[in-house]
Amino acid sequence: MIPRYSRPAMTAIWSPESRFRIWFEIEAHATTALAEIGVVPKDAAEKVWAMGKDATFDVARIDAIEAVTKHDVIAFLTHLAEIVGPEARFVHQGMTSSDVLDTCLNVQLVRAADILIADVDALLDALKHRAEEHKMTPTIGRSHGIHAEPVTFGLKLAQAYAEFARNRARLVAAREEIATCAISGAVGTFANIDPRVEEYVARKMGLNPEPVSTQVIPRDRHAMFFATLGVVASSLERLSIEIRHLQRTEVLEAEEYFSEGQKGSSAMPHKRNPVLTENITGLARMVRSYVTPAMENVALWHERDISHSSVERMIGPDATVTLDFALARMTGVMEKLLVYPANMQKNLDRLGGLAHSQRVLLALTQAGVSREDAYRLVQRNAMPVWRGEGDFLTLLKADTEVTAALTPEQIEECFDLGYHFKHVDTIFRRVFGQA
Amino acid sequence: MIPRYSRPAMTAIWSPESRFRIWFEIEAHATTALAEIGVVPKDAAEKVWAMGKDATFDVARIDAIEAVTKHDVIAFLTHLAEIVGPEARFVHQGMTSSDVLDTCLNVQLVRAADILIADVDALLDALKHRAEEHKMTPTIGRSHGIHAEPVTFGLKLAQAYAEFARNRARLVAAREEIATCAISGAVGTFANIDPRVEEYVARKMGLNPEPVSTQVIPRDRHAMFFATLGVVASSLERLSIEIRHLQRTEVLEAEEYFSEGQKGSSAMPHKRNPVLTENITGLARMVRSYVTPAMENVALWHERDISHSSVERMIGPDATVTLDFALARMTGVMEKLLVYPANMQKNLDRLGGLAHSQRVLLALTQAGVSREDAYRLVQRNAMPVWRGEGDFLTLLKADTEVTAALTPEQIEECFDLGYHFKHVDTIFRRVFGQA
Amino acid sequence: MIPRYSRPAMTAIWSPESRFRIWFEIEAHATTALAEIGVVPKDAAEKVWAMGKDATFDVARIDAIEAVTKHDVIAFLTHLAEIVGPEARFVHQGMTSSDVLDTCLNVQLVRAADILIADVDALLDALKHRAEEHKMTPTIGRSHGIHAEPVTFGLKLAQAYAEFARNRARLVAAREEIATCAISGAVGTFANIDPRVEEYVARKMGLNPEPVSTQVIPRDRHAMFFATLGVVASSLERLSIEIRHLQRTEVLEAEEYFSEGQKGSSAMPHKRNPVLTENITGLARMVRSYVTPAMENVALWHERDISHSSVERMIGPDATVTLDFALARMTGVMEKLLVYPANMQKNLDRLGGLAHSQRVLLALTQAGVSREDAYRLVQRNAMPVWRGEGDFLTLLKADTEVTAALTPEQIEECFDLGYHFKHVDTIFRRVFGQA
Amino acid sequence: MIPRYSRPAMTAIWSPESRFRIWFEIEAHATTALAEIGVVPKDAAEKVWAMGKDATFDVARIDAIEAVTKHDVIAFLTHLAEIVGPEARFVHQGMTSSDVLDTCLNVQLVRAADILIADVDALLDALKHRAEEHKMTPTIGRSHGIHAEPVTFGLKLAQAYAEFARNRARLVAAREEIATCAISGAVGTFANIDPRVEEYVARKMGLNPEPVSTQVIPRDRHAMFFATLGVVASSLERLSIEIRHLQRTEVLEAEEYFSEGQKGSSAMPHKRNPVLTENITGLARMVRSYVTPAMENVALWHERDISHSSVERMIGPDATVTLDFALARMTGVMEKLLVYPANMQKNLDRLGGLAHSQRVLLALTQAGVSREDAYRLVQRNAMPVWRGEGDFLTLLKADTEVTAALTPEQIEECFDLGYHFKHVDTIFRRVFGQA
Repeated sequence: MIPRYSRPAMTAIWSPESRFRIWFEIEAHATTALAEIGVVPKDAAEKVWAMGKDATFDVARIDAIEAVTKHDVIAFLTHLAEIVGPEARFVHQGMTSSDVLDTCLNVQLVRAADILIADVDALLDALKHRAEEHKMTPTIGRSHGIHAEPVTFGLKLAQAYAEFARNRARLVAAREEIATCAISGAVGTFANIDPRVEEYVARKMGLNPEPVSTQVIPRDRHAMFFATLGVVASSLERLSIEIRHLQRTEVLEAEEYFSEGQKGSSAMPHKRNPVLTENITGLARMVRSYVTPAMENVALWHERDISHSSVERMIGPDATVTLDFALARMTGVMEKLLVYPANMQKNLDRLGGLAHSQRVLLALTQAGVSREDAYRLVQRNAMPVWRGEGDFLTLLKADTEVTAALTPEQIEECFDLGYHFKHVDTIFRRVFGQA
Repeated sequence: MIPRYSRPAMTAIWSPESRFRIWFEIEAHATTALAEIGVVPKDAAEKVWAMGKDATFDVARIDAIEAVTKHDVIAFLTHLAEIVGPEARFVHQGMTSSDVLDTCLNVQLVRAADILIADVDALLDALKHRAEEHKMTPTIGRSHGIHAEPVTFGLKLAQAYAEFARNRARLVAAREEIATCAISGAVGTFANIDPRVEEYVARKMGLNPEPVSTQVIPRDRHAMFFATLGVVASSLERLSIEIRHLQRTEVLEAEEYFSEGQKGSSAMPHKRNPVLTENITGLARMVRSYVTPAMENVALWHERDISHSSVERMIGPDATVTLDFALARMTGVMEKLLVYPANMQKNLDRLGGLAHSQRVLLALTQAGVSREDAYRLVQRNAMPVWRGEGDFLTLLKADTEVTAALTPEQIEECFDLGYHFKHVDTIFRRVFGQA
Repeated sequence: MIPRYSRPAMTAIWSPESRFRIWFEIEAHATTALAEIGVVPKDAAEKVWAMGKDATFDVARIDAIEAVTKHDVIAFLTHLAEIVGPEARFVHQGMTSSDVLDTCLNVQLVRAADILIADVDALLDALKHRAEEHKMTPTIGRSHGIHAEPVTFGLKLAQAYAEFARNRARLVAAREEIATCAISGAVGTFANIDPRVEEYVARKMGLNPEPVSTQVIPRDRHAMFFATLGVVASSLERLSIEIRHLQRTEVLEAEEYFSEGQKGSSAMPHKRNPVLTENITGLARMVRSYVTPAMENVALWHERDISHSSVERMIGPDATVTLDFALARMTGVMEKLLVYPANMQKNLDRLGGLAHSQRVLLALTQAGVSREDAYRLVQRNAMPVWRGEGDFLTLLKADTEVTAALTPEQIEECFDLGYHFKHVDTIFRRVFGQA
Repeated sequence: MIPRYSRPAMTAIWSPESRFRIWFEIEAHATTALAEIGVVPKDAAEKVWAMGKDATFDVARIDAIEAVTKHDVIAFLTHLAEIVGPEARFVHQGMTSSDVLDTCLNVQLVRAADILIADVDALLDALKHRAEEHKMTPTIGRSHGIHAEPVTFGLKLAQAYAEFARNRARLVAAREEIATCAISGAVGTFANIDPRVEEYVARKMGLNPEPVSTQVIPRDRHAMFFATLGVVASSLERLSIEIRHLQRTEVLEAEEYFSEGQKGSSAMPHKRNPVLTENITGLARMVRSYVTPAMENVALWHERDISHSSVERMIGPDATVTLDFALARMTGVMEKLLVYPANMQKNLDRLGGLAHSQRVLLALTQAGVSREDAYRLVQRNAMPVWRGEGDFLTLLKADTEVTAALTPEQIEECFDLGYHFKHVDTIFRRVFGQA
């Protein structure tokens, strides 16, 4: 996470101020719950809320205390006592630091997930809008980077839409995975705190009680969360690479928006580079790289060791901030993408209609030619085109073995784009629902 | 995937025989669907089923054909024609190889998921059985590898149960992700084949139609699938490391089953090693290692490139066979695990009751001692115990500052294990449901 | 490692037969060394060599014994005794299984490294040959996939050559890392075996004695070895992606060899796909994926745990066999690569000379125009060309602000390809040494 | 990279101030070289040095300019012109941004490597010092976490020393890999800049000229660099896990230094946790996680794409700062490690001398008992000890089958620790050189 690739709303989740605010809420709700079951005085709980609700927690002051105590939660509680007064001694009763830390982390991850889901929604909107715009814009489909058969540009975007719709569902599931709360004490037995406190805090913080915790919330949940971010990032990489390919000089069917006055290169004034999607490609590598340490964090020793902590202090912000930035950047790219239907058509025509070779093959077969012979006939007329020695349609019409099976009209019919697009409506209905 | 770490049911899914059988079913169902919509003769479809249903596909023969055609699907179709006769020419009409290959891969992954889910069910059974058996067996909880406070051995197993119950749900979701079928032609447009064929084949093969495919089924689905296996493997690693810790010579609270006549070491006749869980630890690393290439497979170029294929030929079997083996091995370990409650008690007592230090701290606080003083009093009686210089309870009773606040009876009461276990029932209900 | 992507010489290293042969050599050399220092009778050592030297070790028989003993080395020694006779009791004296297993693994990895180094040598030959052939073949250099300035195709290949020359040096270093032998007993103290035995066996097996081992050879060596393979694989991916880009339909500057009678697609007879380099791209992902488990293997517990073993049984063969196959495949691709200089020239000319924009910018600057103005002038004549609205040279000559600074001759001079190639000789000398 | 896990010297390398200072040096040296070959006026080069040498580059000012130009190098050059005056127009002549950026990155990585090498030297010092201190301190060696045979604590540290000595050599090689300079222009052809400039700048910056670059320095170098850091981190994890194991309550043979007044747990006053090595374990996961994106960066498209840039902006500082911190922390842990020889002896004795079982086995064999019988005899006396039912030595002396072969004196001799340590000197000489 570096400022260059960060957006403020996501960064704010990980600020010390947010963390201390969440800690306060967890502690204050727990105190209220303790008061309700008669463990601490009700007015103490009320005092905590009254003094802390609108308080500003002084990060520098807390850091100064931590420099002495070497313990961040104790430092916070000491500062809280400065704000609340003597009633602060009723705060944190029967709890351990991990109760606060782990529940806070999950609150942060849930909030991060909410932003990411909203990011995906924005991207879905952009993709849908552009897909509808180009629903019937013909372009060549490519397998292996080689011209295959015609598709529409809208279909390409519909694929991306369907993929990010899946990613949205995955993020919702990942959010659910991580939305748990543990207030269960030193080894998860509730020895010193009633399970009802956990239930109360969970409800208030928008979480579910962790059914069974050790000292900590089990890290398979976090592993699944970060793995999901890695999949979303991989989808971003896929879409980025599509754009980068389309913008290649020789292809130039689409292009990242290039503003007036922008410079593509200090040295080469003619350049217009797909720098945004290249950037997203790199960011995707980073988000994906956080998956393995998250998985390595699962096997903590016994009731917990603290090796996960340094990892999460890094990948918590790094993964969510980077993915948020990348998603938002991609939405911008898609919204403003320059699309060149004329170039698409030019590329479609480039191989003299070779993209229709399967259609001709099938027509020959249906006219009674054996599949082997048909393949041979088509291939021998296709290869010269590939070498720039002629036009596919013309060559076919001049091949007597072909014309023995098909009339010129029948051959021409094979070159009809509409043939390929007759099910675009069906596919769009599948992806976007009823028109 | 190597024989040493393989089980036959999972391996069978990936055999050439299984693959050709699935290919046949996909092709035959597609031919039936084509017949139903009038594209090919009904009796041709019937002939395909009649001849192929119980046929044995000759792997060596298909390999020999592929050596010539350099194309596995064409080789299979050629061999199929040898079995079916001339009606075979109606098979594969309007389809491309990927229609068969991708749908087949997903059938294989679905079947693999079914085995993995059954594996987890068996492990859950073992965990539940042992958890109930040791529901109230006291043992020390450890954080950082250091004694913390008492738990029960059943609670440890309940944690594992809850974790694998989550993993079961994740596998079910992963199975759903991957259970799609694509019969959509060269670039996914259904140009040469009706979408109804896809719907028919999907239904017959127990899959859902892929809403929009390119030439291939999008690889974000597979990335999510393999990421899920990586999480399950990480949970296996966690449980393995727990066992390995418990079997350490100095701890020896539990032990992998050691049969009569077994040899732990050729050189050292006294050895009994946790070799099964060490082995699972290594296997978990392997399953996890397949996650990254699966994610790198997502960003195929345009409508597809074939870089994913070599990856999947490896990780398809490697990940599922290895995880299946590791899950089954873990079930065996848990079923036969030797548990030593006496050693658990001995370890609990080892530090002269230090595990109760928090309880004493709280009792002092409740008796009016400030938290700071209470901490100091407890710590100064705990540290000698740590150095082997006395018994915690005795030392406390001899500390006049302590006895000024607490009676000997009150101090002794702090050493009651039952205090820690009063919510075990609650936790078991949360994990296993109503008793 | 699957047969489809394997070559016999590398596969043979990992066969049971090879393993048992290496085990025999280690045991027999150790027995000789023990005889030399008087621990076992000299004629016993001679008998071991006499009977075992040309013996065929019966893999099935050893497997059958292992099924009973559950210990592979003991099974082998039992079978060896069947071959050697009673003198076999002097074999393995004071050794532990790991002495044999770890030394054997390193012998296998050293042999694998030798093959990989030879593979790289073959690739270097191919690259050098083709680089010299195309030393002065002009082609467009691209940054961001966008035309930048001219290079030669030979320069591209010289870059690949230099990269693989570095990889060769890395493999030599990796081989050195792994070329150690440990015969040091149960915990590495030489309690029951003299260090001179280790020195003798090391020398005979072409290894160095491990300065200090535990029960095992430390796994940081293996981590470095597999990390090196991951880097080599990444370089293969880079070269593969270069070829795949060059073969794209719109670019078509080079192409994987396409044999007479080959079929690119069952459905589309016109297709010629870069399937070999796509395949290498996928294989590179796999080789890279083995790096993380190799690194996770380093942190074995105390003097050893056996979690590394299952990992190495897989990645030992998988990584070396796959990389060997990929390197050899790439050598074939480079040797037979179809290169199309005419298409390169056509692409160079495609943008009407835009590739010379920097040259014009510099000429304007040298003629006294400020850098800012020069940039503006060049960019305003470049952008219409990008849109297909004219030819760069013509536009520049028609721009009066440009012609105020440069004569038509000076402008034309900026379009000279030779200007870009004046240092090709220098670079070739740096890469390939004196001509 | 977060402040909590950062040290200032390493962080300083990555500050904007350092970066701009390095940029200045590269540009100024290049200008001098251009002056020497007559391309720019000598006094211009002198002016650049005179004005820039001690100048403070205003980061905020440069950021403000970049906000307009969207180009960091242009922003810097603009600010430099404000400092230098009109002669600044001779700066950067014929160069491209990557010439500055890539050379700067390598200067930073070289400096980072120098710090890391010094870190390893400090760790080696600490390890050597403690190894000599405990050269002959007996402790139990463990395989599989189970007692095996005696070693000395010094041997354990000698193993760590040897491992980090290898890591030092690897870091030196990684530094060499990365110590290159490229000043070769837009596509690496030196079209607009003489290769002598590159040679000059390289020499002045302590680098070697990159033999052949594209627009960028090839990323296989960086991949190797970060892979090396990953191996070093894995070794740190290994040593951390050793300490964590030794500090376990039941083992307690060594312990991280615990200062007066330190609190191990807010809730449990008796706790002393190995938090530093747990922290290093987590940091090692992070350093290792950066290896894969560094390898994915190798396959840039054609002469470069910019996807590597975002990755390197993150992993450049993240990997080096984190590893520096972890190495320094480990040095502190080792220097102050509390070692408990009495506990080591107690653990050694714990199993009633079982650690000597191999020795007894060998003695029986040498006394003429067959290996099978000897194994059986030893195992039947070992197993009761394991169950806490007696003392190994006593049991052996009471076993008539044993005493038929060995006298009581011979049995007792098998329990001599010195037997195991006779080669400690040899091993120390191998690791540390002549005493």
